[in-house]
This record gives sequence, structure tokens and C-alpha cells, in this order.
Amino acid sequence: MSFGYHGKILRVNLSTGATAVETPDENFYRTYYGGRGLIAYYLLKELGRHVDPLGPDNILIFAAGPVTGAPFGGSGRNSVGAKSPLTGAYGDGEGGGFFGAELKRAGWDAIIVQGKAEKPVYLWIKDDSVEIRDASHIWGKETADAQDIIREELGDSTIRTAQCGIAGENLVRFAAVCNDLKHFAGRSGMGAVMGSKKLRAVAVKGTKGVPMANPDVVRDQARWLAENVQEVAGGLYDCGTANGLMNLHGSGGLPTRNFNEGQFEGAEKISGQTMRDTILVSRESCFACPIRCKRAVKVEGRYQVDPKYGGPEYETLGALGSVCGVDDLEAIARGNQQCGAYSLDTISTGTTIAFAMECFENGIITKEDTGGIELKFGNADAMLQMIEKIAHREGIGAILAEGTKRAAAQFGKGAEQFAMQIKGQEIPMHEPRLKMGLGIGYAVSPTGADHCHNYHDTMFAKAGKSLDEFKALGMLEPLPENVLGGAKVRYMTYVTVQRNIANCLVYCQFVPWWPDRLLALTHAVTGWNTSLFELMNVSRRAFTLTRIFNLRQGFTAKDDYLNDRFFKPFESGPTAGVQIDREQFEQAKKMHYGMMGWNEAGVPTEATLEELGIGWAKDYVPK
Amino acid sequence: MSFGYHGKILRVNLSTGATAVETPDENFYRTYYGGRGLIAYYLLKELGRHVDPLGPDNILIFAAGPVTGAPFGGSGRNSVGAKSPLTGAYGDGEGGGFFGAELKRAGWDAIIVQGKAEKPVYLWIKDDSVEIRDASHIWGKETADAQDIIREELGDSTIRTAQCGIAGENLVRFAAVCNDLKHFAGRSGMGAVMGSKKLRAVAVKGTKGVPMANPDVVRDQARWLAENVQEVAGGLYDCGTANGLMNLHGSGGLPTRNFNEGQFEGAEKISGQTMRDTILVSRESCFACPIRCKRAVKVEGRYQVDPKYGGPEYETLGALGSVCGVDDLEAIARGNQQCGAYSLDTISTGTTIAFAMECFENGIITKEDTGGIELKFGNADAMLQMIEKIAHREGIGAILAEGTKRAAAQFGKGAEQFAMQIKGQEIPMHEPRLKMGLGIGYAVSPTGADHCHNYHDTMFAKAGKSLDEFKALGMLEPLPENVLGGAKVRYMTYVTVQRNIANCLVYCQFVPWWPDRLLALTHAVTGWNTSLFELMNVSRRAFTLTRIFNLRQGFTAKDDYLNDRFFKPFESGPTAGVQIDREQFEQAKKMHYGMMGWNEAGVPTEATLEELGIGWAKDYVPK
Repeated sequence: MSFGYHGKILRVNLSTGATAVETPDENFYRTYYGGRGLIAYYLLKELGRHVDPLGPDNILIFAAGPVTGAPFGGSGRNSVGAKSPLTGAYGDGEGGGFFGAELKRAGWDAIIVQGKAEKPVYLWIKDDSVEIRDASHIWGKETADAQDIIREELGDSTIRTAQCGIAGENLVRFAAVCNDLKHFAGRSGMGAVMGSKKLRAVAVKGTKGVPMANPDVVRDQARWLAENVQEVAGGLYDCGTANGLMNLHGSGGLPTRNFNEGQFEGAEKISGQTMRDTILVSRESCFACPIRCKRAVKVEGRYQVDPKYGGPEYETLGALGSVCGVDDLEAIARGNQQCGAYSLDTISTGTTIAFAMECFENGIITKEDTGGIELKFGNADAMLQMIEKIAHREGIGAILAEGTKRAAAQFGKGAEQFAMQIKGQEIPMHEPRLKMGLGIGYAVSPTGADHCHNYHDTMFAKAGKSLDEFKALGMLEPLPENVLGGAKVRYMTYVTVQRNIANCLVYCQFVPWWPDRLLALTHAVTGWNTSLFELMNVSRRAFTLTRIFNLRQGFTAKDDYLNDRFFKPFESGPTAGVQIDREQFEQAKKMHYGMMGWNEAGVPTEATLEELGIGWAKDYVPK
Repeated sequence: MSFGYHGKILRVNLSTGATAVETPDENFYRTYYGGRGLIAYYLLKELGRHVDPLGPDNILIFAAGPVTGAPFGGSGRNSVGAKSPLTGAYGDGEGGGFFGAELKRAGWDAIIVQGKAEKPVYLWIKDDSVEIRDASHIWGKETADAQDIIREELGDSTIRTAQCGIAGENLVRFAAVCNDLKHFAGRSGMGAVMGSKKLRAVAVKGTKGVPMANPDVVRDQARWLAENVQEVAGGLYDCGTANGLMNLHGSGGLPTRNFNEGQFEGAEKISGQTMRDTILVSRESCFACPIRCKRAVKVEGRYQVDPKYGGPEYETLGALGSVCGVDDLEAIARGNQQCGAYSLDTISTGTTIAFAMECFENGIITKEDTGGIELKFGNADAMLQMIEKIAHREGIGAILAEGTKRAAAQFGKGAEQFAMQIKGQEIPMHEPRLKMGLGIGYAVSPTGADHCHNYHDTMFAKAGKSLDEFKALGMLEPLPENVLGGAKVRYMTYVTVQRNIANCLVYCQFVPWWPDRLLALTHAVTGWNTSLFELMNVSRRAFTLTRIFNLRQGFTAKDDYLNDRFFKPFESGPTAGVQIDREQFEQAKKMHYGMMGWNEAGVPTEATLEELGIGWAKDYVPK
């Protein structure tokens, strides 16, 4: 009897229509866990160096983890991974909602999709039954319509779906995978990979449970969260993930106008508080979670917004808002809906539009390029029009759909300086000049700039203090401010590794389980006598495998960069004069490599691979 | 309010008679914990490169740890540390009994002794009161007599003592520190350092408690051990630490005749079972421990043995028994008493005598050198006579009192090949050809050959299996047999680090607390939200500091060797034909360095120091 996993991975070859079941043993699951760990294992083992991310040889993995689907808050998530069409590097995105839990309840730990269908298809999984079905009639449909059709034709309105949307169909390199309309595995362009395989959706219905070693403990922990949700996550309930937007603005770290500024004069108009007091119609939930951080908003009049697409997260308010200089909350909500309807990553979408705006303001592109649109910071309608153009690859949208890195190369004329991307992935709504540790994290992240597995300096410890929850990792020293020295790098490394545990287990980083309750839950679900030592190494192992994947694809330490912009100070605001020192950055990067057990060139050492029990991976390290 | 420590370290300068109290903060204690961690910190900070281990500039530290003195089995211990006169490297030894607990109950976390007294003294500590007292009248006395006198003149028969004995007075380089006659901080020659300072004893009486955050949990755990002692440690109760002697013999790994053989024809006569059925008169205990693994034996007739000196441990039965080819249990018990009375380390004593025996049998030394003694393997009386000569530095004893390394150099004629020592410290009773992982451990141990902080392959996992308690560290792979490959090195590294936690906390490795109960106890005593991740790094930190200490003293990777003997196979027995492959050994050593975060030369990297929060130590790393 196994707990926490089913020991079944579904493999689907869309070229041949064949399906197969793989049954890894317990050691496999306990070594790689799930999510990123499992994805990194398969991508490294199965993808050679020259695989086209949008070709049939790429593989696309939907991965749950050992705790996914167990009835506690944060366990509904899943990861989607593949070689990224945006970066050419290891790619994954994590999405919330219910899909991950449903997949587990259907008896599957992961789905590996290979090949490419001749015509649009969707996958219909009902417990052990797996069917590849025609999707021609939903191809080109918005996500809500597609989901309605699927549920209707399968005769079950409770079916969970993961879709690629029109953006994915059109191979927009930052297309997301959409879970049930409101939740997105947004980063790395996984939607485009899905689209490239002509796999429009995966529909799942499960009637099995998730086997748990000690359901009583899970129930007790879930009850604790339900009873204490106001105290431990009240802000998230009240204002959603945008709860801290005004704090970032106040600290001078709210990315504004393509990261040229750290404060936005319109911040209050787009804040979580304002949303709560205006367009919010309900607070919604993911699987088994009492926090209800999800928003559903309604707008009538000029910007029609239907609550079925939820509402903007913090990242979206930043990306379509402050980063584009847009202070109209209703327009942002509309943009959020468009991104949802087409399944676009709002972060890359917003940062790409802001990039185009800065190019426009600097004369690199003109109205001729934009089809007459006055593409200036603050122009809400222009922002919305650009979303349409990107999703449908119309006009300049066809260039922007390639992401800022490729678009900048095409624009030329120095456009590269405005492309706020690392390894090709657009930077999310966290300012490295405020969060210097995160700056290193952006640079070394295997997926390019990413906030989902990284250290957020200010979230965890204020300068001069250490938080008790991180003392469990032995980090006792106060956090140094505005410097990238030793203790800061250690915080960055440890917290990055710690946060990435969530992406291997798989659970939500917003639910305050860390550290003791997380151990209790993991033990209760899996029955494994796990420890923080083991979990930290599960995460290090996953990170190290993604690192090797990237080295194999030709990436080097030079690709672990941070944009020039961050090495120059802001001119005003609380962060005025603060900049990242380039030499400190380079030293900190090497220090981080060392702490991860990689050499000065960022290559994992053989001893590290052996220590992590992945000695096999040395054959994949370029000589 | 602090828990687990008092925040008070006593510093005594015997040259000036001055005493002082240091009051480190909580972060100090949580960073270094105690025992080896604390000792390594002070030795590195305070001892320069050329300090004479037997001169006044060496410092001698008696260190408890955060859990020492809390009322649960295994918490009575203490470490004694200094630069070792045997190795010239970092030195420490751990002793059981009651002294550590008493020191903590007196309100002290550690004692640091500096300088050298003009005439013999002893230290009398009663809670906050500290007195340096004349010891002229006990100088030259056997340990039991000295303890009697001290207790009588201080008017308290419950006083606990740590003594150096006559061997320490005579600067025998492997003199031990004796706790209460029956317990020894045996290794590294700490007794000689004590003697060199003319500090004959430390007498302690404490009336304070050990502050505990959650005494109820400690009581519950102690009760669990008391109620389950038969099940979890019945063998230790029944036959003491010699419980496994026959198994080692049966496996072909009982060091015999100076490690020339792995089986001893007289094994059964000196086994724990035979001791139980013959000379055992009682099973005794350390502080708060229900296991009662300590032996007290009585012998009348030719070899008089008084139970007040306890009885031989496994190490002693091997060192004075099989390693010397002696199969007379009563003679061994007599030798054990002599070592106790003079406070000699039985391991180094036995291995040194066996060395001399092999030299004698090979004609390197003769009866002329031995004063007429027929110093052959198996000659029990010769073994006992040599103990007398070593303790009193009489005749050849004066040479052997220098340890095998120096004695071999003095003997010449190829005697080095018979000196079973690493870094100058004699090898304990564990055969590297049976326990290959331990072979690496011997080589890299900062104290030279040592079994107290090392991996014992066969104890933890049988070849082809993994034990659940080590799965908590993520070690899932089966243990490879008779090979020093990747997984074996990982086991060796992790388990070595894990075992060394005991020497930092400080508690006894024989009590089966690992891993969950240990965490519960540590948390309950200290109130710290500690994790296995933190504890593993506490141990790595301590190891790394000892490594730097040794590098600073001039040691290099070349000093991490294993004796030639172990690279040749046994001729008979279950281990016949098994040898350590020299190339595998060198590769495994480097692999271990890498896993520890050291470079190929065995030098800790700057990233490792920063990761461990000891960036300050980089100034002590030789360039």
C-alpha cells in the first residue's frame, strides 16, 4: 500500500494515439516527489539538446505531487512542464485551482504528453479510462466556451479542465495553461507547447481518493487552518494577493512603467483594497482551501468583465497596471479577462506591452508599426488592444507574441535595453533593487525571471532581523539591507530552496504551513518519515536537474544575468539612489553557485550529484 | 529566559589564577551548540599555528551542550577538547557518566582552562563559586584514591570529578580524562593536556537545574525509554557495548593481532556474553539513563579487579584483547582497571602495545628493549606489564607513551608499517575492510582514527538495504557492499555528520533517540524550533571548523590516509580477499570532500563557510 501517490504515470503519444501506464517504484517518488522534481527528471532524461520546443519531440508534463489532492488548503495545484518556447530552457509553470487534485483523484500522479496530433484533440480522463477526443469544434474558442462544450458533451458539469486557449493555439510564446478559467500555470509558455501539440485541453474526472497514511492528522491540520484563517491569512482573504501592493509602492518597489520607477502615482487606484471596495463580487477558493484569496470581479459599462474569469492577482495588477502605467482598475480587470479567455500569461503579456510602450515612447516603433495605436504608458485602451493583437498574432502582435527578447532583436535600434527579460522570460512584479536577493534568484532561475520559486527579501525578514520560521534552517543572522553580501546570499539560497519544496510536493506557497505543519502534513499523507533535511534536498535535487538541463541546452553562467536597468539607481522615492552593485552581483552569483554545490561556472559537481543521489545525471553534464 | 544553556562559560587562567565569566548570546549557542561545535570555535579562534599542545598556550575545554543534564538517558556526557599532543591536530574526546550533567547543573555551559599552574592544582566548582585548590597531595595518586581525597576534603561524597590520572601527569600522549573512575574522554590525549597544566582534577557540584522549555516532553520521552528499554536497547543492557563482539568476529571484522586478522580464535572467551556469565557483578548507569550498558566486574585471584573501576567496554576488549591476541578476560579486566587507575585511553594503549608486540615478533625490538619481557601476541602478563611501563614512562614505556607514530619513528627499521595510527592517533576496534565507509571516516576525521563521530557501515544498513531511520535524510538507495562508490560515500558522509550531531548537542550515540525523538527532545529542552536540516548543519559547521583548524596547523589532504595494511586482503575468514582499492579510496575521499563543501584539496570553500554562517572563519584558512 502506497500513500500520497498512486504509482501510475500516464503517457500519451499524440502522434500515434497510443497511451501507456508507467509504474515507478516508491524510491522514485521519494527521490523526485512530484511537480518540478518529476518534470526535471523526465525532461533531462528524454529531451536531447536540439529539441524544438514547439515541435513534436518536446514533451509536456502535467504533474501533481505527493500531497496533491489531500484535503487541506493549498493541495489543489499542479505543475506543467516542458522545454520552454520562450527561453529554450527548462520550463514549468504552476497553477492552482482544482485540476491537480482531480488528476490525483483520478488515480494519476502525472501525465506525459508526447508527439503532436494531426488535428485538434483533447484528452478525457475518467479514472482509469483515457480517451483522445476530437477538439476541432472547440479550436479557436475562448476558454469559457471551450470548457462549457467539453463539460456538456461529456455530460458532467464538475469535470476539471486544463486548456491552452487561443494564445496557445497561435503559439504565443508566453501562452499559459488555464485551469478551470480562473487559475493559470502561467510561466514558461506551456500553453504554446500544448497548442503546438494540438492538444486543446485535458479534461479530468476522478472518483478515487488520495491514499493517506494518517488522514486524522490531515483533518486536524485542515481544521486548524479553517479555525485560524483570519489570523494567519486574513489579508489574503480580505484583499487577495494584491494585499501588499500598497506596501510595495510605499517601499519604492512597485514596478512601474517598465521598471523605470519603483512607485506608481496610481497605485491606490489599482490596489487590492480598492478592488475589494469596488468591483469585487466574491472571494473564491482553490481545492479544500479556506483562505479564499481568489477574486471574482464584475464590471459593466465600457469594460465588460464577467466574474466567471475571476479577477486580477497582484501580478496582473502590476503587469497590466503599474508596469504599463495604467491606473484604471476596470481596464486592468478587462485585460485580465482577455488574458483568461485566450489563456495568456498576464506577467509576460503586461511586461511585453510595457516594453512596446517604452519602444514607442523612444521612437523605436511608431504608429505605423502599431497600426495607429498611441502605444504610450498609461493608455489603458492601447494595453487592451495589444492583448488582442498578441493573442491573435495580428500586426505588431505577431512580433510581441514572440516575447520581449525576440521582439527586441527584431525591432533593433537598441530595443534590447527595454526588454525586461531574463533568459527570455519577462520579469514579474518584484523589483530587484528593493529585493536584492530576489535579483540573484531571477538571474539563476532555470525558467528565467520567475517569482514562484524565489526568495522575496522583504516578505521573509526585515533588514536587521531574522524570522523564527527561518531559524529552523539555522539562519540566525540578521538580514543585511541593500547589499548582496554573505548572509543575504545564504538567505536567498536557503529560502529559494525552501520555497521550491512547494513546487515539488506540490502545494501552495501562500498557505502558511511552513515549517512544522508542512512536515506533519507530508508525513501524514505519505507515511514517509520525512525531515526538513530531506525536503531541502528534494528541492536542491530538482534545481540541480533543471540546471543540468539548461547546461545541456547550451546555457552558461553568462545567461544568469540581471538587466542593466537594475544596476542603475531610481531617481526618486524611498529606493532613490539604491542600485545593485555589479561586482557584488557577480560575487553573490558565484557564492550562490557554491552554496548549491555547483562550481564557479555554475556546473553541479560530481560530488553534489552523488550527494543528492542522482549520480546518473553526470552523464548529462556537458564536458 | 534561556533554555538548554545558561549563557555562562567559565574561563580559568592557571598561570595567573584568574577566573572570568563569559556570557555569549543565544545566537552563539544556537550556532555552535556545544561539545565539538563550541570547542572547535574556541580552538580555532584562540590557538595559533605553533602552539605546543603540552605547553601553557594550549587551551583545554570541558564542554557540555544544550541538552546536557536534562533528565533523559544519554544526556550526562561532556566533551574535552584541546590541540592534541598525540596528533598535533584538533583534539577532543567525549566521556559519559555524570560530570557533564553536574557541570550544567552548576550553571556552566563550559570551562576553558588556560595557562599552566606552578604546582599541582584542582578546580572546585560549586554552582557559581570557583576555587583553584592545591592538589599536591593527590598528585601521583591513582584515580580512585584521588577522588576519595577530594570528596572527603570537600565534605561531599556526591561531588563529580574529571581527572587526568598518573598517565596525564606523566604526559603520556594518549592519557585520558577520567569521569568518576568509570567513564573516559579517552581519545586525543586530553589527559596529557590536563597534566601539562598541572590540573589534576575538576570537581563539580551543582544544585541548579537545567532550564527546559517544555519539561513535560522530556519526561514523556524519558518514560518511553524506561518503558521500552528492553526492546530498544536490551542487548546493551544484557552484554554492554561488547554485545556485538561475536558478530564482528563472525563477520570477519574483529581487529586481531594488530589488525593482521579479522577473526580471533579466542573471541568467545572475551565476549560480552562470557563477561555477563562470569565476572560481571553489576550493570551500571550514566546520568538519567535506564539502559545500564556500563559493566562492573570483579576478579579475585591472580588478576585482582575491583568493581569500582567498572568493567571493560567493547573497545577495551578489542584493544587489550584480540588486538594483542589476549584471550584471558580476567587479564583484560585487570588491564582495564590499570588504565582506569592511571587514566589511560584503552584504545591507544592496546593498539600501542600490539604495535610493540608486532615489532618484537619481527625483531625490530628485542628483550633488551622490553626489559626482558617476552612481548609476543597473546602474552597477557606482558600486556599488563606494558600498561604499567607506559603509565609510568618506565623503560620502553617512555617511548610507547609517545604513541605508535613517534615510537615507530624512534624504533626505525620499518616499524612504521606496524603503527596502526592515522594522524598519530591509534585505530579503534573497527576494521575498515569490513566497514569500508568507516575507512574514509578514519582518514578524514579531524582527530585522527576515531570511531565516535563516524559511520559504521554494518551498524546502520546491511548491504543491499536502506534503513528507515536514514530515509529521513533522503538516503533511499541500497548500501553497496565491499565498494567505496557513490552511495557508500553518501552514507558515510551523511551518517558521519548525523553522528557528530550527538557530539555537539551533547548526548550519547548509543541511546536510540534518532531521529524524531531527538528532535522532540532538543526542541523541548531548548525551545528552539530546530530541524534535522539545522542539526545536520550544526554538525557540518563543527566539522568544517575542525578542518580549518587542522589546515592551519599544516595538515593537508595527504594526512587523510589509511594504513597500507587495509589495502591488502585478509587471507582467511569471511572477509578473506576483501581489501580496499587504493584508487577507489582516493576518489571516495575527494567525493567526501565535495559532499562536505570542501574543494579537491579538502579546503572548505568560501561559499560553504558563508552557507554555514561562519564567514569569519575564512581568515583562518591558509592561502
